[in-house]
Amino acid sequence: MAPDALSAITPAHISGLVVGEGCFYAESAPDSKYRLGWRIRPAFCIEMRHDDRAVLEEVRRQLSCGQIYELDFGRYRAYRSRGWQPHVKYRVTRLSDLQEKVVPFFRRYPLFGQKALAFTLFASLVESLARGDHRCETRLETTKGLAAALSRHNARGSRSRPS
Amino acid sequence: MAPDALSAITPAHISGLVVGEGCFYAESAPDSKYRLGWRIRPAFCIEMRHDDRAVLEEVRRQLSCGQIYELDFGRYRAYRSRGWQPHVKYRVTRLSDLQEKVVPFFRRYPLFGQKALAFTLFASLVESLARGDHRCETRLETTKGLAAALSRHNARGSRSRPS
Repeated sequence: MAPDALSAITPAHISGLVVGEGCFYAESAPDSKYRLGWRIRPAFCIEMRHDDRAVLEEVRRQLSCGQIYELDFGRYRAYRSRGWQPHVKYRVTRLSDLQEKVVPFFRRYPLFGQKALAFTLFASLVESLARGDHRCETRLETTKGLAAALSRHNARGSRSRPS
Repeated sequence: MAPDALSAITPAHISGLVVGEGCFYAESAPDSKYRLGWRIRPAFCIEMRHDDRAVLEEVRRQLSCGQIYELDFGRYRAYRSRGWQPHVKYRVTRLSDLQEKVVPFFRRYPLFGQKALAFTLFASLVESLARGDHRCETRLETTKGLAAALSRHNARGSRSRPS
């Protein structure tokens, strides 16, 4: 892609791309390092083929947060012979970035389809964590419930396919 | 998704979605039923989780062509236990629809990233077939070359991943 073609990527393009390739998810698991013994870590990511890194750089520029990782290390190399090619991942994990940048972006430029519901659950989860609900024993249950609902919703559309 | 949310899907959303989930490809193989012994069949498709069928119906409405298939039959059922869920596929295979509807749509609402290059190869292939190049022994080689270039380009971003 010519470098100037990147400037043609609009927020609506990003919303459409995220409906296809984006993922709103949360790790939710027991962890004794946390005061209430439970860890909840929300994240937003988009994974693309490695030669589409420039697209993800443009997404990062427009969202003003997040990091880009090359998925081309260790265990992946062994899979080259099966036709697997390196991928690149854009990911936002910092809670303040999710709350102040990612969630407002997709409120302003809405998603559609089932990803819109995933986003709604995710935004509620991020707000719950930002309020500190996970530090209160009673409210932690609600936050865990949101994480579980998001996980179930994502699993219903699981990408795993017959080979 | 509420039915009225579908009307919010713009052509730019569709372009973004296709960058993520769309596929421009062509079958190109020996076939004795064809006069020159070779078959080339281009197609455009988008695959999504089954409960996003309404999104694909809206794409079909805006492109005014194509069909939607449930991928929920026979061999797929056996994979449910491995977490595979039924998917739904929108596909356009009729050459006149590809030439008169799909290609003009994405010329008007451009793609970006590596999918933009796939589309350029695909559009050239569709035009070559529409001109009847595949019925002339010399020009068939060029058409086969375009199909091979498209296939190589798609393979470089192969979705297969380590399990």
